Amino acid sequence: MNIGVAGLGLIGGSLALALKERHRVTGFDTDAKTRDAARLAGIDVVGSLAALLPADAVIVATPMQAVVPTLEALAARAGTAVLLDVASVRGPVETFAASAPAGCRIVGLHPMAGRSETGFGAASVELLERRPFLVVPTARSDTAALALAGTLARDAGGEVTVCSATQHDRIVAILSAVPLTFAAALALAGSETVDGNLASLSGPGFGDSTRLALTSPDLGSAMLLANGENVRAALTRTRAILDEVDRAIASGDAAALTAILERAARARRELG
Amino acid sequence: MNIGVAGLGLIGGSLALALKERHRVTGFDTDAKTRDAARLAGIDVVGSLAALLPADAVIVATPMQAVVPTLEALAARAGTAVLLDVASVRGPVETFAASAPAGCRIVGLHPMAGRSETGFGAASVELLERRPFLVVPTARSDTAALALAGTLARDAGGEVTVCSATQHDRIVAILSAVPLTFAAALALAGSETVDGNLASLSGPGFGDSTRLALTSPDLGSAMLLANGENVRAALTRTRAILDEVDRAIASGDAAALTAILERAARARRELG
Repeated sequence: MNIGVAGLGLIGGSLALALKERHRVTGFDTDAKTRDAARLAGIDVVGSLAALLPADAVIVATPMQAVVPTLEALAARAGTAVLLDVASVRGPVETFAASAPAGCRIVGLHPMAGRSETGFGAASVELLERRPFLVVPTARSDTAALALAGTLARDAGGEVTVCSATQHDRIVAILSAVPLTFAAALALAGSETVDGNLASLSGPGFGDSTRLALTSPDLGSAMLLANGENVRAALTRTRAILDEVDRAIASGDAAALTAILERAARARRELG
Repeated sequence: MNIGVAGLGLIGGSLALALKERHRVTGFDTDAKTRDAARLAGIDVVGSLAALLPADAVIVATPMQAVVPTLEALAARAGTAVLLDVASVRGPVETFAASAPAGCRIVGLHPMAGRSETGFGAASVELLERRPFLVVPTARSDTAALALAGTLARDAGGEVTVCSATQHDRIVAILSAVPLTFAAALALAGSETVDGNLASLSGPGFGDSTRLALTSPDLGSAMLLANGENVRAALTRTRAILDEVDRAIASGDAAALTAILERAARARRELG
């Protein structure tokens, strides 16, 4: 197929690299250096968003705030192209799609993948391998468009799960957003407790627990605010468990504490 | 030197394997299968705790609840041997040492290292490489004993930081204990939200954030309870930061949220 990718950062760049093994991929980025880097990596790069069309599909992988404007610009002239977007919060796209031109087709395609580094330089085929790709129908999705999203997800190395926008945003609140807030709180409290000597005092567990604190503050802030209601509910639920832990420590209740940690270990073992 | 290691689990086993490259190491474990495994790995194993003496040093690396009883058993007949112990909470050893026989020497030697797997089978020289080793004086430490602890830490591949028992227990509360409680709360809330479908929905960030939830529930529970006051204080501090985050989300304050995430990212970058 002919696939356009708008936004060649970490996720868009990785998708372009992965999909060009099986498809004719054309990329665009607003940043000239990113375009040069993508060209050097063998991606066919064009000089404007409009030049990604015509295509069988265009994947919008811009920063979150730019996703809806980019979809809007594409929707006006998409023809039969399916518009996909990787936005990690679905609410705003959901709202846009509901009032998008009748003929256009829009499907969410959100890979649960990431790393601390950003930009095309950090993009790689491996980033997406065996990762969950959440396929999210909108008011402008049809069966063929959903099937195409699934095909591209699998061609990029991912594993497909279909969920509604509502489910998606509840899921990412607890699986991405709350972990980010916890990592940030730990990194800050840890650093202030040891007066900046984290490297000489902490082990690998602290490093793992706080890795998400390296997320770009702009991306993190956008992700938390765009999904505020779900994030606050997930924070409340998670903090209720911390209350339980705190009560068990306060009362010296080893059995209660061990029981909570056993349930948690069982839950975590699902991930291997 | 002649070094005894009492307890050949993950940490004791790794210390025995690492130190035997430069020292004459003798190991003991109450579990016969562990003794057999250690023997197969080339460690000189004896059949009783007492048989670790005489020695230049004995490292106590038993489960936390057994550390003080084991030190007590050794102290009575240690002679000139320096007793070291890897307990991850110093309070109980501190108390014991203050009333230990006058002639004996006791020093804490706590490697900030770990992994989800436990037991001798998971032990390795690599586990300790370049990890912080916290050397903690007790009421029964002298300069020579502290120097010996430092030498063994470096010989095991670690990097030495000396701190008091009080500092140590405050540090591990925020760098080990609170991260464990956060990981457990996230794993539980995540699993209950996605109804057990964590593997098909979560990315690497959630995996990193919850890895500590795989800690043995008995070890975790003992670590939290033995250091309860510090852990509760660290939980309170960390949750105050989560309150800030929650307020910023509730009021849609992108600038405040980005500022918190920026401070957190800066703190985390200390770790590389």
